[in-house]
Amino acid sequence: MRNFVFDNKTKIIFGKDQEQVVGKEVAPYGKKLLLHYGGGSIKETGLYDKVIESLKAQGIEVFELGGVKPNPRVSLVREGVSLCKEHDIDFILSVGGGSVIDSAKAIAAGVKYDGDVWDFYTGKASISESLPTGVVLTIPAAGSESSAGTVITNEDGLYKRATGHISLRPQFAILNPELTYTLPAYQTAAGVTDMMSHIFERYFTNEQNVELTDRLSEATLRTIIHNAPVVLEEPSNYDARAEIMWAGTLAHNDLLDTGRLGDWGSHDIEHELSGIYDITHGAGLAIIFPAWMKYVYQQDVNRFAQFANRVWGVEIDLNNLEKTALAGIEKLEQFFQSIGMPTTLREANIDDKHFEEMAKKATENGPLGNFVKLHAEDVHQIYKLAQ
Amino acid sequence: MRNFVFDNKTKIIFGKDQEQVVGKEVAPYGKKLLLHYGGGSIKETGLYDKVIESLKAQGIEVFELGGVKPNPRVSLVREGVSLCKEHDIDFILSVGGGSVIDSAKAIAAGVKYDGDVWDFYTGKASISESLPTGVVLTIPAAGSESSAGTVITNEDGLYKRATGHISLRPQFAILNPELTYTLPAYQTAAGVTDMMSHIFERYFTNEQNVELTDRLSEATLRTIIHNAPVVLEEPSNYDARAEIMWAGTLAHNDLLDTGRLGDWGSHDIEHELSGIYDITHGAGLAIIFPAWMKYVYQQDVNRFAQFANRVWGVEIDLNNLEKTALAGIEKLEQFFQSIGMPTTLREANIDDKHFEEMAKKATENGPLGNFVKLHAEDVHQIYKLAQ
Repeated sequence: MRNFVFDNKTKIIFGKDQEQVVGKEVAPYGKKLLLHYGGGSIKETGLYDKVIESLKAQGIEVFELGGVKPNPRVSLVREGVSLCKEHDIDFILSVGGGSVIDSAKAIAAGVKYDGDVWDFYTGKASISESLPTGVVLTIPAAGSESSAGTVITNEDGLYKRATGHISLRPQFAILNPELTYTLPAYQTAAGVTDMMSHIFERYFTNEQNVELTDRLSEATLRTIIHNAPVVLEEPSNYDARAEIMWAGTLAHNDLLDTGRLGDWGSHDIEHELSGIYDITHGAGLAIIFPAWMKYVYQQDVNRFAQFANRVWGVEIDLNNLEKTALAGIEKLEQFFQSIGMPTTLREANIDDKHFEEMAKKATENGPLGNFVKLHAEDVHQIYKLAQ
Repeated sequence: MRNFVFDNKTKIIFGKDQEQVVGKEVAPYGKKLLLHYGGGSIKETGLYDKVIESLKAQGIEVFELGGVKPNPRVSLVREGVSLCKEHDIDFILSVGGGSVIDSAKAIAAGVKYDGDVWDFYTGKASISESLPTGVVLTIPAAGSESSAGTVITNEDGLYKRATGHISLRPQFAILNPELTYTLPAYQTAAGVTDMMSHIFERYFTNEQNVELTDRLSEATLRTIIHNAPVVLEEPSNYDARAEIMWAGTLAHNDLLDTGRLGDWGSHDIEHELSGIYDITHGAGLAIIFPAWMKYVYQQDVNRFAQFANRVWGVEIDLNNLEKTALAGIEKLEQFFQSIGMPTTLREANIDDKHFEEMAKKATENGPLGNFVKLHAEDVHQIYKLAQ
């Protein structure tokens, strides 16, 4: 087991009606707030009104910036930074899913920096402090509500890049499973894929002695796998929505990192896809992950056999561990298909036109991943396997 | 699933040599520190010198209060409170196990209160703030290193009582598994029992829809069960010690509470035992828990059958779930015996002399537990079952 620091201070407020406490949670941080959100759905559902009411009750002055899109753009972030600087904003509240939260984090870091916020994503600058943020989560998927990371797309060249800093962990995250009842099936399934992928990125490691972290990861995966079909069948099943929502946070709050080094190659490979094609991140991961697994499983057949057995209930064939390992990957593909995700690029109408370019761009700062180091040629092969 | 708040801000610093960072971790909180510890073992092992060196390097002035005993006494806590008030101490550092940490927390709360610190344990007063504390953990067991609770014994009548407040969560906890190599087998086993018990208290609930929390609990239990014999066999096995140490923290950091109400009846029943007989807390729990389980399992045979199956690998007998449930309890008893714990009061030389008195004292503030509400007569029966 590797040495680690686990330092996650995000307060999780979970359950029915909890969006009503948002004003009280913000109050200790100041009086001027930027409300950041996506399209109009939070107005249609009445969530917007509830949040505003709770904030006003605490005498908080609200500035607004809506319009965050999936694969959030740096241009809107820059707008948010200016707005915050201009009005001396104290706190940024995201109401939405991962894109909104990631955009809010970028603004929060940008406010404390004199240069262009994109510098954080190219490695030209490092985040050292940020405005405090909070979240009312509406889409369980990205885990950004308690993570220290943010992913932003630069329209100028369609670069999608990630960065992080501990100051980006939100001060609080309000998780009310009822707010996810109206999520369309496709988005629900993409969210499920995203959270499972966050666990895969951590699970496939070369660290041999991480039993507790392994078992916690398997526990979370099994819960997701069990409840995903339920929420697709019964969108208003509170308990199943609750399991999925809490699992999405735990999948990415770094508990499942403890004692080992994550991989993150597949996320980088997917980021090129969704940077160019604007495909839903979760759908991109459903395509990339099985291909990545097929490409790398021989690095540690035992680990993939354990995955097959403990997560998917595949019986271990001691005489053919490779077969066991492959059966696990097949189960995963079948699962993604069963929840309506594409598992090939073809299904997403993506041909091989940009394979070489994407592989090159993904690896321009060096090889990807930790479990197996992937160079441009490896990434190209993975795109091919995903066809 | 019940609504919940999960708010655990303790920074976990885990791994080899990490006690060396203690000075840097304390520095942001002030310049005057109370070093709280137990007997002389930290001096024998050299840990004391390392900690002092790290603190001095940051220019921190160190005041000392050693002598914490298992089942820590309120008299020493009162001494600590006076010492802190007299010298305007900023921070309390515990170097030791649960008793030292609980004692430090009591001091931390007492410093901010004008009355007698015992008031917090009788319910006469409530904690609202505390001095910040930190921990260098040497005994994985109590989970106090990131919990919000503290248990103190009042020698005047041998009352052992618990209280808690979020301000009691330590700011940081340093967990170096190497520091546990010298723990004697009995204390190691008692610690294992204690952490398992913390999970049992949370696992046996009337809440039906807590799948993720159940599975995380089972994952943690299996890890403990797998690694306990290893550390008893090979006290210096780093990886096994690491699994046990991290499991002990997770067992009690409230993650495994999420979405449900804990029971805590067995802890209260055991507190009477160790209040009067000064038996090791873990050993007391190894005696009480199987008896409690036998007394209450019919409240939810399915849950006990799930426990038997998922934690102990007992095959589910669908035609006789009660048999499955009982087989799980038997496995637990056998496990406790296998690691050298007593599972009957007789083995601990405790006769029935105080049964009635303890049952009465345990329930003087009302019935115990939540899974099944236990009155004095029930508690008496559980002591009898534990004979």
